[in-house]
Amino acid sequence: MAHYDLLVIGTGPAGQKSAVQAAKLGKKVGVIERHEVVGGVCINTGTIPSKSLREAVLYLSGFRQRNLYGAGYRVKATITIEDLAFRTTHVITNEVAIVRNQMARNRVDMIHGKASFVDPHRLRIQQTAGTIDHTADFIVIAVGTEPARPAEVPFDDESVIDTDGLLRLKRIPDSIVIVGGGVIGTEYASILAALGVPVTLIDKRPRLLEFVDGEIIKALQEQLKEIGVTLYHDEEVLEITKSSDHRIVVRLKHNTPIQATTLLYAAGREGATKELNLEAVGLKPDERGRLFVNAHFQTSIPHIYAAGDVIGFPALASTSMQQGRHASCHAFGVPDRMDTDLLPYGIYAIPEISMVGKNEEELVRTEASYAVGIARYREIARGQLIGDETGMLKLLFHRQTRELLGVHAIGEGATELIHIGQAVMAYHGRIDYFIDTVFNYPTLAECYKVASLDGINRLPRPWPLANHEP
Amino acid sequence: MAHYDLLVIGTGPAGQKSAVQAAKLGKKVGVIERHEVVGGVCINTGTIPSKSLREAVLYLSGFRQRNLYGAGYRVKATITIEDLAFRTTHVITNEVAIVRNQMARNRVDMIHGKASFVDPHRLRIQQTAGTIDHTADFIVIAVGTEPARPAEVPFDDESVIDTDGLLRLKRIPDSIVIVGGGVIGTEYASILAALGVPVTLIDKRPRLLEFVDGEIIKALQEQLKEIGVTLYHDEEVLEITKSSDHRIVVRLKHNTPIQATTLLYAAGREGATKELNLEAVGLKPDERGRLFVNAHFQTSIPHIYAAGDVIGFPALASTSMQQGRHASCHAFGVPDRMDTDLLPYGIYAIPEISMVGKNEEELVRTEASYAVGIARYREIARGQLIGDETGMLKLLFHRQTRELLGVHAIGEGATELIHIGQAVMAYHGRIDYFIDTVFNYPTLAECYKVASLDGINRLPRPWPLANHEP
Repeated sequence: MAHYDLLVIGTGPAGQKSAVQAAKLGKKVGVIERHEVVGGVCINTGTIPSKSLREAVLYLSGFRQRNLYGAGYRVKATITIEDLAFRTTHVITNEVAIVRNQMARNRVDMIHGKASFVDPHRLRIQQTAGTIDHTADFIVIAVGTEPARPAEVPFDDESVIDTDGLLRLKRIPDSIVIVGGGVIGTEYASILAALGVPVTLIDKRPRLLEFVDGEIIKALQEQLKEIGVTLYHDEEVLEITKSSDHRIVVRLKHNTPIQATTLLYAAGREGATKELNLEAVGLKPDERGRLFVNAHFQTSIPHIYAAGDVIGFPALASTSMQQGRHASCHAFGVPDRMDTDLLPYGIYAIPEISMVGKNEEELVRTEASYAVGIARYREIARGQLIGDETGMLKLLFHRQTRELLGVHAIGEGATELIHIGQAVMAYHGRIDYFIDTVFNYPTLAECYKVASLDGINRLPRPWPLANHEP
Repeated sequence: MAHYDLLVIGTGPAGQKSAVQAAKLGKKVGVIERHEVVGGVCINTGTIPSKSLREAVLYLSGFRQRNLYGAGYRVKATITIEDLAFRTTHVITNEVAIVRNQMARNRVDMIHGKASFVDPHRLRIQQTAGTIDHTADFIVIAVGTEPARPAEVPFDDESVIDTDGLLRLKRIPDSIVIVGGGVIGTEYASILAALGVPVTLIDKRPRLLEFVDGEIIKALQEQLKEIGVTLYHDEEVLEITKSSDHRIVVRLKHNTPIQATTLLYAAGREGATKELNLEAVGLKPDERGRLFVNAHFQTSIPHIYAAGDVIGFPALASTSMQQGRHASCHAFGVPDRMDTDLLPYGIYAIPEISMVGKNEEELVRTEASYAVGIARYREIARGQLIGDETGMLKLLFHRQTRELLGVHAIGEGATELIHIGQAVMAYHGRIDYFIDTVFNYPTLAECYKVASLDGINRLPRPWPLANHEP
């Protein structure tokens, strides 16, 4: 038994950054990890494996090159799970080592075992050799989430799987039904479709990813259809059964039943809080296991924080890191800038989507005076070079001051591209910046210039910037 | 015969943007093009074809994937010129159409033929059907460059070629000697090496690309060696001969002779000014056909401007565009911001190089108080995912104020990545911006954060930013 300044439960992005931040402040820190390997869902079953799978599919299927070498072009006629997994294993091993090193370098105690609360300052850790108790002034719950597995879904981890199961499949499915059009469902739908698997994506909402700009989602949905995803919006699954010939039959509320060899249930994840014995301290998660926190990531017990996926939206590695860091700064009374308006969002579907700032629906809702400028990748040389005919960058800016209000991108490199606009927004810059700036040629960044000029051209004349040209 | 407000000679990036800018200002504009197709060297034989070739080589050779799938991995066992050219033709056709449309949309007269001066306001255009004269208040010379072909080099356009000839080769060379380690020589050396061709690169200077940060060049040179480029620095070619068995023999000043099946002469280009009859107006180009201009791109005759490659360094499409635009703005008395310190440079070698702001040698020379922060791609998840183990981002910042002074990148996506730092520099931002910012995960942009924290950690303690962590 030891006493710590901070104990962190979980070694995903939120837990890592929370621990390291506190250690940097000279605090005595321990992190508790229930799995054998560190890194959490992010490294082991979520972000990293899915992005790694995505890169492998893009490459091996020749997906990006189809516009350049013809639709029949692909690197491998038959792609196997081994082909796809090769890269994943390599990347995971590396990332785990990086996290381990970072912890060791910062003298964070790594404690393996399953943590549960004994009282508000005491955690019991169940280890193979027995249990041990540790106490702490502050505790950060960064346990992440696990796939929801409702009783009515006949999971068998072979033909009816959750998102963890997808990475353990022995062969690529002949056809797949994906239930749930959130970030994970959408990402996997597009990746599998790019691989040539017929995909049916069922979502109960009228469109995918409701927090994303509508015009971007329209483009995404069109592109998903083009690569072979059948989309069912406003639809609900009534029953999932297995036929005698080992096919999965999905009965729907508004449409005729559909069949596939595999079903991926991706409708939500639950906070991994069940075994934390939260009752002992009086914390009550919501019906999906998630914890409520204030703006500083404190739970209702001020010295117990929660950060990362376990607190819900947006559940992105990048934001989770920031939350973990902020929790530790707040706990130890150190100021920490946190400009939540400028958090970028990245969705690693095929095509990639990213955004920062306001979207058009938000600006309409707040009756802001805004204007729009759009550039298509096909209008610029780099778009032609990489064969991305459908990518686009959309800028939202203030109609009078021309201050940049939001940046939305869909297409290759979108998650990188967004950071240019993010920097300009951080300095309250105007779209004039993009018009005046020289960008490397040929790069996707030129979209910012083309979109700004498009935006200026849509404003009523006389333009304030008569000396600029498209 | 017609009278124009502006006549532009050449339809490359400088000519295009000069013409369109003047047209946007309501001026009557004509552009003269001596080749059948518009776009100049950039689209037809230079920037676009080489970048297109580069993309094809990267993909077909499986170059980027070697770290992930093993060194023996490539998409095609035998890559032919047809494979490489397929994409190039496609992209060129598109780009030519874009330029044509832009000219037509802006009502710029396209005049085909070879222009030469009659007097300072009159150009004679030699066309297939005869000659025609046009006059103009202002003239912009944007004729670009052509490869230098010194008499002592036995060009035969098959085994001894210039950079235009490289794109017309019928087969991939068995081995190649490249004379000239400038941007073009370096780019082609790396592209051919990535394709598996043994390359010898001969340069008379002690290092490649002297305007690039020394540490970046060191990394480049190491990586070139690793992919099979033999580098000769401080070396001069004494004689190039063909042996009886059709090999090229290159006699050197300081080393034993070398042999290859092909020699690419890439030591310099000359301004394409020979046939302009500049004597008629009293303009005298330098010994390499280049014109001298002032900060507004005026030649010694104030109403005659020159822009683009014809004025020499840096001879990049991106800067040429800005020069052309600026020339027209200046001619017609319209203000135009031109912050030359923030011009980015992009070198599309394998690996890609890009930079903006000061490099370390410049800061040493001016005795500036600066510090350095470095991030390696292999330290971040995205670097692992794309298998770029050698990429790096180097930040230079003011030691006291922490203002960002320069950004230097080598590795995949470097030419895009640089624009984030460029935006921060435009607003005189500090590296604190990168530390406080949330970047999408996993992206290369995270290098900015890692490099900033590295930079802060190298400063003497106590750090001004105790609350930040690496």
